[in-house]
Amino acid sequence: MAKDKNKADKKKARLKPLKRQVRRLEKQLAATRCKAPATGPKISPLAPVGGFPDLPVIEGVRFAIAEAGVRYRGRPDVMLATLAPGTAVAGAFTRSATRAAPVLDCEAKIGQPADAGAGAAIVVNAGNANAFTGRHGAEAVTMICAAAARAAGVPETRVFTSSTGVIGAPLPHERITAVLDDLAARQDSGAIYDAARAIMTTDTFPKGAGAVIEIDGAPIRIAGIAKGSGMIAPDMATMLVYIFTDAKIAQAPLQKMLTRLTDQTFNCITVDGDTSTSDTLLLAATGASSAPAINDMRGKPARAFQQALHGVMLDLAQQVVRDGEGATKFVEIAVTGGADDADAKKVAMAIANSPLVKTAIAGEDPNWGRIVMAVGKSGAQADRDRLAIRFGDILVAEKGWVAETYAEEAGAAYMRRDELQIGVDLGLGKGAATVWTCDLTNRYIEINADYRS
Amino acid sequence: MAKDKNKADKKKARLKPLKRQVRRLEKQLAATRCKAPATGPKISPLAPVGGFPDLPVIEGVRFAIAEAGVRYRGRPDVMLATLAPGTAVAGAFTRSATRAAPVLDCEAKIGQPADAGAGAAIVVNAGNANAFTGRHGAEAVTMICAAAARAAGVPETRVFTSSTGVIGAPLPHERITAVLDDLAARQDSGAIYDAARAIMTTDTFPKGAGAVIEIDGAPIRIAGIAKGSGMIAPDMATMLVYIFTDAKIAQAPLQKMLTRLTDQTFNCITVDGDTSTSDTLLLAATGASSAPAINDMRGKPARAFQQALHGVMLDLAQQVVRDGEGATKFVEIAVTGGADDADAKKVAMAIANSPLVKTAIAGEDPNWGRIVMAVGKSGAQADRDRLAIRFGDILVAEKGWVAETYAEEAGAAYMRRDELQIGVDLGLGKGAATVWTCDLTNRYIEINADYRS
Repeated sequence: MAKDKNKADKKKARLKPLKRQVRRLEKQLAATRCKAPATGPKISPLAPVGGFPDLPVIEGVRFAIAEAGVRYRGRPDVMLATLAPGTAVAGAFTRSATRAAPVLDCEAKIGQPADAGAGAAIVVNAGNANAFTGRHGAEAVTMICAAAARAAGVPETRVFTSSTGVIGAPLPHERITAVLDDLAARQDSGAIYDAARAIMTTDTFPKGAGAVIEIDGAPIRIAGIAKGSGMIAPDMATMLVYIFTDAKIAQAPLQKMLTRLTDQTFNCITVDGDTSTSDTLLLAATGASSAPAINDMRGKPARAFQQALHGVMLDLAQQVVRDGEGATKFVEIAVTGGADDADAKKVAMAIANSPLVKTAIAGEDPNWGRIVMAVGKSGAQADRDRLAIRFGDILVAEKGWVAETYAEEAGAAYMRRDELQIGVDLGLGKGAATVWTCDLTNRYIEINADYRS
Repeated sequence: MAKDKNKADKKKARLKPLKRQVRRLEKQLAATRCKAPATGPKISPLAPVGGFPDLPVIEGVRFAIAEAGVRYRGRPDVMLATLAPGTAVAGAFTRSATRAAPVLDCEAKIGQPADAGAGAAIVVNAGNANAFTGRHGAEAVTMICAAAARAAGVPETRVFTSSTGVIGAPLPHERITAVLDDLAARQDSGAIYDAARAIMTTDTFPKGAGAVIEIDGAPIRIAGIAKGSGMIAPDMATMLVYIFTDAKIAQAPLQKMLTRLTDQTFNCITVDGDTSTSDTLLLAATGASSAPAINDMRGKPARAFQQALHGVMLDLAQQVVRDGEGATKFVEIAVTGGADDADAKKVAMAIANSPLVKTAIAGEDPNWGRIVMAVGKSGAQADRDRLAIRFGDILVAEKGWVAETYAEEAGAAYMRRDELQIGVDLGLGKGAATVWTCDLTNRYIEINADYRS
């Protein structure tokens, strides 16, 4: 009996500290108040429903991917796309003053008349950005271009490369050149989904968009892929975009269209206001379509093509925002009534990049005061007493003060949505701009601070 | 026996799930990886050691504070300072296009010759910013100025007001005017510490700095207080600064000095790149010192005074950064070799405001690639291959690549310090700028998103 009593007491003695430990841990856990536990990457809650779309096959464009082990193991990290002879290639690039070596090389090649009738190739690697790598960086680009030119049977002047990943580490270009012959031999016109996967870094989903239009009864097809702006650990978000079409169009108007539409799409998104050294957008037109050629910017075919291209570019741009690090809200900011379009865009971007606005959105706080603040700091012409602010259809503030009809509960209910529209009317002129962004959450800090690769 | 056995089994049955629960909780807790638990406000880890300094008493300046219940309960929230007849008052204000009503009123009054020989008063309230409050806002300022003028026996044109706190809510000015007579009756030249406390919002410590210099054997004293940039829940960080001196100096040179020194101090700090609608800096010179008058910007007395004033302003500005929301690191960013000073400041501010740089610092990650990125996006003239980056004395990168002597371990060890210096040499010219900032942590997100007042 005595022994058993002793045992029971012992058990009791073990129970108590365990209970205390449970209470202590529960308290600690409650105190952390992290919104999401720092688990591994999972698909962004804002990813398009339905997954990767069915994209039209573009005649004259073929893809293959490989696991070259540039940095990652056990996943594809190099993509080779080949383009049929005569394909026109246009490009848009980061405006950073510290552009990476492959970007400088692409910029120099785009629009050059030499070898314009020959085939072309695009080589992309993930895992290493070949940025801030000094002379070595340029040499690596040269080696890759030479190997790709041999493998694909195109001139070196028609090989375009992109690299995305770690900054400042020498690119192991021999791992890339080692797989190019094999990639050239396995080219497949239907492998665009694979290509979208191979260029991902910390993206949580592959991004694709496409369109088919008819001109004089003949189809013109557009298919594009993109990566970004999941962080390229441990460095920076980079956006890479490749769009292909079978449209018959010369390089000059193609470039003009791309530049104009980039300003309306990819230059209207922001995740954190930081600019990559590697952002690259290439648009290739093979001319394989039987639709009539597009010779200039005017006319119905040019307009229809531009409209379709705009749709594809906007879709890809918005997918990049939807994959923003830690994003839980997709936010459209529409500014009207600016002195001009440039002023409206200044205001829209000031709101979209404001940490105070973005944290308020993360906290589902209808904090319109922070929007007033962002308008004020934007540098654009603004008049406090003409300003109007809307959340969706809800008029929040007007004439320099909160609207009489506004109820805080309505604003709070609106902010609980996943997709938000913030409208700002400056009441000054006809300038307008719309930009897209996401919220700023603890997860962004975790991705960019707590986790070191 | 059987009963006891049963009991022991029961105990065992209770032990197991408890142990499981402990393991589960420990796992959950590990997964949150929050850096700091979200406890209530405590003093910033970067606060100056030794607390609030002993400040010199400025003859001709007196203070009193009151609990007016503008928004908070049980803490002082209104401060009245009175200034002796003839005090020269200079000011610097937010550049926001949506400036708050009290800021507009101060701006209109500063430097006006009318009533310049009369006494003056400063009224500050915490809890309500009187910003974006339409016509009501201007009326509230008028009411407060009239009441303060009566209470302190000074002209309305010599009453300067500041409000800090919630945006868009009408200021209950009657609560402020109700306490002004009492405040005027209780004026005390030694109460500057109380004044520093009364203007706090979510600051975690009161901020003060002072200096005494001698000119021809006679002392000139300077004492200043500041608040910021703890968040004014639920709105924005506002910086308010009041500096007093007994120097004999006219308004015009005082204003010139203030403008120049503001550019070198308060305009060189950033917490999150967002700009308040209410930032206000007032500098009052009573002329009570027996030191010779300072009549212009040149000469030894003017230089000595400016140097001392610069020290006080820089100290207060750095204290504001040290109280930045969620800050765990105090960071000096020194840029040299710019094409000109403006370019150097652009680069310094681009680094200081980059969320990617700031999160890397929070994570103690010597991520110099993000600094290259920030230089590139700054818009300043930069040449990748002339760029050099230093952490303290450690040369990290030069000539477009990582320095041969750099060891990642040394960089990582450096980043574990509380106070960091990041040096960037652009290698182009003689332009230089130094700015101060803090890191971007989960706690910033919590303060600005998770907690709603």
